[in-house]
Amino acid sequence: MVSKTKFKSIFLAIVINFSFCGYTIAQDVFDKSKIENSMIQALEWQEAHPIFADAPTDWTVGAYYVGVARAHAVTKNQIFEAALKNQGYRNNWETYKRVYHADDVAISYSYIYLDMESGRKNLVDLKPTENFLKAHLYKPNSWKEGTDKAPEKNILWWWCDALFMTPPVLNLYAKHAKDETYLDEMHKYYMETYNKLYDKQERLFARDARFIWTGSNTDKKEPNGKKVFWSRGNGWVISGLALILTDMPGTYKHRQFYEKLYLEMSERILELQSKDGLWYTSLLSPDSYNHGEASGSGFHTYALAWGINNGLLDKKKYLPAVKKAWNALTKCQHKNGMIGWVQNIGAFPEPATVDSWQNFGTGAYLLAGSEVLKLKK
Amino acid sequence: MVSKTKFKSIFLAIVINFSFCGYTIAQDVFDKSKIENSMIQALEWQEAHPIFADAPTDWTVGAYYVGVARAHAVTKNQIFEAALKNQGYRNNWETYKRVYHADDVAISYSYIYLDMESGRKNLVDLKPTENFLKAHLYKPNSWKEGTDKAPEKNILWWWCDALFMTPPVLNLYAKHAKDETYLDEMHKYYMETYNKLYDKQERLFARDARFIWTGSNTDKKEPNGKKVFWSRGNGWVISGLALILTDMPGTYKHRQFYEKLYLEMSERILELQSKDGLWYTSLLSPDSYNHGEASGSGFHTYALAWGINNGLLDKKKYLPAVKKAWNALTKCQHKNGMIGWVQNIGAFPEPATVDSWQNFGTGAYLLAGSEVLKLKK
Amino acid sequence: MVSKTKFKSIFLAIVINFSFCGYTIAQDVFDKSKIENSMIQALEWQEAHPIFADAPTDWTVGAYYVGVARAHAVTKNQIFEAALKNQGYRNNWETYKRVYHADDVAISYSYIYLDMESGRKNLVDLKPTENFLKAHLYKPNSWKEGTDKAPEKNILWWWCDALFMTPPVLNLYAKHAKDETYLDEMHKYYMETYNKLYDKQERLFARDARFIWTGSNTDKKEPNGKKVFWSRGNGWVISGLALILTDMPGTYKHRQFYEKLYLEMSERILELQSKDGLWYTSLLSPDSYNHGEASGSGFHTYALAWGINNGLLDKKKYLPAVKKAWNALTKCQHKNGMIGWVQNIGAFPEPATVDSWQNFGTGAYLLAGSEVLKLKK
Repeated sequence: MVSKTKFKSIFLAIVINFSFCGYTIAQDVFDKSKIENSMIQALEWQEAHPIFADAPTDWTVGAYYVGVARAHAVTKNQIFEAALKNQGYRNNWETYKRVYHADDVAISYSYIYLDMESGRKNLVDLKPTENFLKAHLYKPNSWKEGTDKAPEKNILWWWCDALFMTPPVLNLYAKHAKDETYLDEMHKYYMETYNKLYDKQERLFARDARFIWTGSNTDKKEPNGKKVFWSRGNGWVISGLALILTDMPGTYKHRQFYEKLYLEMSERILELQSKDGLWYTSLLSPDSYNHGEASGSGFHTYALAWGINNGLLDKKKYLPAVKKAWNALTKCQHKNGMIGWVQNIGAFPEPATVDSWQNFGTGAYLLAGSEVLKLKK
Repeated sequence: MVSKTKFKSIFLAIVINFSFCGYTIAQDVFDKSKIENSMIQALEWQEAHPIFADAPTDWTVGAYYVGVARAHAVTKNQIFEAALKNQGYRNNWETYKRVYHADDVAISYSYIYLDMESGRKNLVDLKPTENFLKAHLYKPNSWKEGTDKAPEKNILWWWCDALFMTPPVLNLYAKHAKDETYLDEMHKYYMETYNKLYDKQERLFARDARFIWTGSNTDKKEPNGKKVFWSRGNGWVISGLALILTDMPGTYKHRQFYEKLYLEMSERILELQSKDGLWYTSLLSPDSYNHGEASGSGFHTYALAWGINNGLLDKKKYLPAVKKAWNALTKCQHKNGMIGWVQNIGAFPEPATVDSWQNFGTGAYLLAGSEVLKLKK
Repeated sequence: MVSKTKFKSIFLAIVINFSFCGYTIAQDVFDKSKIENSMIQALEWQEAHPIFADAPTDWTVGAYYVGVARAHAVTKNQIFEAALKNQGYRNNWETYKRVYHADDVAISYSYIYLDMESGRKNLVDLKPTENFLKAHLYKPNSWKEGTDKAPEKNILWWWCDALFMTPPVLNLYAKHAKDETYLDEMHKYYMETYNKLYDKQERLFARDARFIWTGSNTDKKEPNGKKVFWSRGNGWVISGLALILTDMPGTYKHRQFYEKLYLEMSERILELQSKDGLWYTSLLSPDSYNHGEASGSGFHTYALAWGINNGLLDKKKYLPAVKKAWNALTKCQHKNGMIGWVQNIGAFPEPATVDSWQNFGTGAYLLAGSEVLKLKK
């Protein structure tokens, strides 16, 4: 018989489920069907809630569809492909408009992926992407030339997020066009950013030059006196590295640089994971906002799982961290599919809430899921 | 133990919930989180069911997004802003096409609101709105000139709905452009409509000149012999007044006229509320169709709550009516978020059903919620 | 009292419901409200999951909106009309681009239907449809001229699906334009296809000339040695016939041909129904993939129910089959509204799964529902 108490507790469980986020049954990294369902629900919620900063071709949307593309690459579930086609067609396969700005071609990752994947001749138009990339690489602009008024903006990719926005696109386009020149150009600008923003001691990227310590009193510090290293900022870099290494030829002359950087950052990211499985928004000062943040955590989880699946990371060492991270990430998903705990658009650590969401947070979740799906016992 | 009877009744409650509209737990006007959730669900259902008469820039869509804009103004929940951006972008920030027609610029309220609110420079394009407003005010047309064949169409805004469609847009655009000329022009045409359609004895607006009594046998009458005053028609006017007063400078020379008209109509609308909390579709002949109608009721509820929140209406007198109205409105919402009991597109009282819906009905619901959210105990 | 066992079984029923498709309560063909609800849910799911092969104007989308149009014709529920308007407007009332290809004007059925139904002057633009039809009929091309390299492509409508894609559009456009020339042209090309692909012994259509037996060793055969007759392929033809007969004048000189063909095929389709109510994907070799397939089955169910409703088929003989078919079709609908068990885009029998879906499968379901709704006891 069902006792009153038992019935009540079932009832409560249902009610709670609607109020808080997180599935009642914690997700197992080896339960592929549950993981794929969770990814589909994230996609469905996001497709029903289109959002952007300035346009449906901007970087926020671009980063989301990178996640959708990887979700499709792994599952081959047409629900992801349908979403890719739909957005691309509606966007007329265009980039956003500022050819000097790395953000504005992030959307093209999904276009190139779809063109290579679908094999349909009448579908994708890659001309706008090609035009953007050529202008981005070869047309002068004040950032590239170092003539901008803002002192931190004196290289083409002056903020670390840029390393997610354009390099993986150049890398994939190089593969598509079978033209290594794009890789060489990518490497040239990547090195500029690496040389400027990578902190070799901390093995993390400053978000941009304003966060580099110069020994001055005005150096930006966290309350605990540490440097400011943003979780999502480093998430952009490390997940961008995994994307690059996925499609870069094994024989490419500079591949070693990217592998080495990926390995260094992976080790550091592993050290900085919180006990509960997520990364807090300020990597060296978790107490600044003491809760996990889903977008940075999604990117880190993707990158670490990718390394296990591709034999670059020691499974024994990294798998427990990925398990814990994925489990915690699934708790950020609301019953309706929405991914909460995503820090808003920004440039440094700020808090999130159970209800804060952004399309790129969903993208990070899908990226994470796409590699967790491939983990083997 | 759960008796068979008890279990059955729980089961029945669930089934009923899916068949009829209305939440199981009646909504309290002071339970802000429940109200906001209900508004979000209304938005989500409506976004998933795009509808229009002729185009996604027409007045039906315009009125809906006025509700979305006010919902955002009060909650700052980005789910509303995302919807505003998405529709505006997809519409290329265009108005509908007939520059002589007040309906066709209603959509611009949401564009202007978003431009002022978002602070993003690359987002909204207000040029089409400006062009429309200038043509509407300064280009001759047969209505304005009084040369139209239809005798009732001899002023620019010859039907009372028009007072919702264009004046709040002119008013908000005047604020945006910091140009009082738009207010002066608005006032000129508003007075024409007021002088023609406002029934000073009844303190209500005839829908258009066809409904004004002339003492002839052919005057339109309700079955009970009373004049035809349409609930939604007057809802357009009184909610339009609240919108106007929200953004009109306190010092504007004609402000008193709008406040006085608002106060007169509010008192009359209060008298005409039904016992169950809603307004029936024919204000002086509730028996014509003896059920509450959600679009008119939403507009009235918004207007009265706005008056309480802005100190124009006596809280003691009006708050009980607003409470009753909101409670009844929430019962028009289906479990899936849809707002039912909305009279179809029309020009005079006609019946609605539990299943009849329109985007502007959702807009009226969001407007109502936006001010109910601000009520204080 | 609810015993533990009973409670468990209720719980299990809920869980199963989410995992498998099919409503707990089997659908009765005379329960109109349940049928309409099921159709609405199918529409809502499909609208939330836009998909196409090359563009939102292609044949996959076209076939889907034929179903939506017929659903509206029967129910007059504005939820279907809103979807028709929305897609047409977003497509700018354009066809897809290859004027020689029957597939690319399938979308126009929904445009013409909406124009005739809505009665709004400012809504639908039929110019692109007219231009396509004229070019399709009167401009030379290699298929029509028989000069294509592929030997099977030597008539305009060389594959049987084409008989769904264009003839019903020509037929409806003839009615709209009050111009019988379109019917005469349709008949001319229809006869070419009929003469080439219709197997008079089997009373079924070969998908295209590659499936016609020539007595050679290389003739395509099923494992059981029978000819390959594709369920969906014949579904395109027979449902196309029902569409044509719906709007073709009773007095049209060639009407008898279409009625006779419809009757012959109906009898054969009835014979080939499986015990469980659906048609398997290979009509003469059900064991090839031994499960019902929803798109072909939807088209057959629509056609047979249409015949009963229009007095062409013997109710006593056909109604039991339609009942069984509809009941089985509803079991292909997932709890979330999705229609599963739809064979992917193809040209001959291939298997489906509980999770395989396509927009035209949803269209077939809506077509079936639209006529089942009209069945009388």
